Amino acid sequence: MRYLLAPDSFKESAGAESVARAMSRGIHSTDPSAEVRMLPLSDGGEGLTSALVQATHGHIDTAAAHDASGNEIQASFGFLGSSDASTAVIELAAASGIERIPQDRRDPMSASTFGTGELIMAAIKAGARRIILGLGGSASTDGGTGLATACGYRFLDEQGNSLESGGGSLSQLHAIDARNVNREAVSIPIVIASDVVNPLTGPHGAARVFAPQKGATAAQIDKLDMGLAHFSEHIKSFNGRDVQGIAGAGAAGGSGAGLLGLFNATIQPGIELVLDLVRGRDACQWADVVITGEGSIDAQTPFGKVPSGIAKLAQGEGKPCIAIGGQIKLDESDRKRLRDAGIVASFGIAPGAADLKSLLATTEENVEASCASIAALLKTRPCGASHDQH
Amino acid sequence: MRYLLAPDSFKESAGAESVARAMSRGIHSTDPSAEVRMLPLSDGGEGLTSALVQATHGHIDTAAAHDASGNEIQASFGFLGSSDASTAVIELAAASGIERIPQDRRDPMSASTFGTGELIMAAIKAGARRIILGLGGSASTDGGTGLATACGYRFLDEQGNSLESGGGSLSQLHAIDARNVNREAVSIPIVIASDVVNPLTGPHGAARVFAPQKGATAAQIDKLDMGLAHFSEHIKSFNGRDVQGIAGAGAAGGSGAGLLGLFNATIQPGIELVLDLVRGRDACQWADVVITGEGSIDAQTPFGKVPSGIAKLAQGEGKPCIAIGGQIKLDESDRKRLRDAGIVASFGIAPGAADLKSLLATTEENVEASCASIAALLKTRPCGASHDQH
Repeated sequence: MRYLLAPDSFKESAGAESVARAMSRGIHSTDPSAEVRMLPLSDGGEGLTSALVQATHGHIDTAAAHDASGNEIQASFGFLGSSDASTAVIELAAASGIERIPQDRRDPMSASTFGTGELIMAAIKAGARRIILGLGGSASTDGGTGLATACGYRFLDEQGNSLESGGGSLSQLHAIDARNVNREAVSIPIVIASDVVNPLTGPHGAARVFAPQKGATAAQIDKLDMGLAHFSEHIKSFNGRDVQGIAGAGAAGGSGAGLLGLFNATIQPGIELVLDLVRGRDACQWADVVITGEGSIDAQTPFGKVPSGIAKLAQGEGKPCIAIGGQIKLDESDRKRLRDAGIVASFGIAPGAADLKSLLATTEENVEASCASIAALLKTRPCGASHDQH
Repeated sequence: MRYLLAPDSFKESAGAESVARAMSRGIHSTDPSAEVRMLPLSDGGEGLTSALVQATHGHIDTAAAHDASGNEIQASFGFLGSSDASTAVIELAAASGIERIPQDRRDPMSASTFGTGELIMAAIKAGARRIILGLGGSASTDGGTGLATACGYRFLDEQGNSLESGGGSLSQLHAIDARNVNREAVSIPIVIASDVVNPLTGPHGAARVFAPQKGATAAQIDKLDMGLAHFSEHIKSFNGRDVQGIAGAGAAGGSGAGLLGLFNATIQPGIELVLDLVRGRDACQWADVVITGEGSIDAQTPFGKVPSGIAKLAQGEGKPCIAIGGQIKLDESDRKRLRDAGIVASFGIAPGAADLKSLLATTEENVEASCASIAALLKTRPCGASHDQH
């Protein structure tokens, strides 16, 4: 039996690669002759760089940059391998991620994506001719003005002074100054990989939906939302682009808007982009069965997540896809939607009563045990057994 | 596909019959054409009566009796159906169970099996010619002297007075008086169904192993252990039977010893007896796959528990057996032992991080979801897929 092991990371507990390796150990423990192929995936957020670099045999690079609070850091980005060797892959969270900032030092008003712009410049300098940019996990709600600033844009107030960094100052924006912009940065094709489709502003926008988890108060959320709306009006006056309603413009604190408005960027659902780049369809063709997984298999899973993305490809090739998850939270209609998406069965990996902390600490062994049982089942099934005719 | 659904009860949360029904619902949700047969099982403890009555199409009877504290109660017992219609089935816990006594009124020294003797007499009166007696879940450590008393035995102290009820008085036993014993009660074949193999006394005996969970202090445990040893000496003087070392004599607070010493009783592993009576082998022959389950699948499971019992039969018929459990707690050598016992795969039903209380409250829906996934997997597997030759 040929297994394609194509999980996302299990958030807060195990990277996609570790999960895939645990799956493989489990399968081989009950079916030593199984052939496995590991294809750790990402929907554009955490793990995008390593998934793409690993699958295409590319390489990792690092550059000096600043985190969302302005501290000097070293951050990683990647280059794809083989035929895509001039394509760089950058995760916005690599420099501008919220995980980099200690809880007590997070400031949703001043947090900036400047460091991501530094990585864009570093990738160009290293020879990139195309950039895959994964949005997600940002500390900021600056509309991408920080990364634009790192590429030479200036955002000026009424007095002609540069705005302070962060989304908190956007309502004072009076003019966008592109005189010193880096020409390569604004011409290089940037493909945004995003797993969210939120618009820039409003009830489903970047501030209202995502700023709370970045520490913003109700008053701050209002101010950020108004600032982003004001920013989008300025983009419209600047070059005629209307980013306000584009699905995904609200990703990563509105970075989608800044990229789509001020760069040569397009946006794609992260998982589709990833599956395309890692040749997911070929891998499904090879496999007899696909096992995927994610921290939580829930009502969101059918919509642009790794498990449903790979399952759809598997379905197209007539291959069943099984999902495992740290948490399974599905009602009957979710289950039906997953089946329609090609996920024939979902298994939770929790071995019994346990709090989240201890489950997170045992993810890999639980993945291993679950896959051991799944493989045992698939191996042992009495094939062709049918008594429907009796 | 033909499914045999043969679970034990999930302790404290769902009876074996409810579990089997939940399994059936889950299977039919993903494989509507599946044929299922429900065979709820018991290893001799909780659920023995209903498992045997249901599988043989027998009936339930009730009788007045006393609980372990001496309160008047109504308790149930059963009669098997068809060819075994003169065989009664009694659970010791039905009258003498610890669950009947509120926590703050449990007294390990005075708790008595008297009510179980009343049920034995009631079953005889109702026409029983053989009794299956399931041990387990007792409140008492009286060596079965209570039930023997209800059948006419008297246990006397040095002054010729009857001992107070319960194991606490056994060390004062001076003579066993059988003059008024009921002749039918001591001649009717009693088959003890037990899932434990503990001897009467010593470190693995009834008092040391089981009295703590009945509320006994260290001093009380010593006294109970000595009382049971003293009781077995008296049985030996009384009729020459040496029950001290018999495996299972320590079951149900030493009731095994009283029954084997003073009645026409034999002892059998509960699950073997049950599988024999419910024609488990025929059921496995019919099935393509067996699904069993228990509250906990752990290091004990391979030893005389329902899942390993039915799996062994299934293995003999060449059918795979899958186990599900509220808790899966297995290391690699446990897994190997389970595989050797015929359990090819084990799945936990917990859907994620959850405390025991909420898991117990959702057992049936979690069983259903797990079996839906298992059936989906078995249904979807690409049969005959093999590339080992490539």
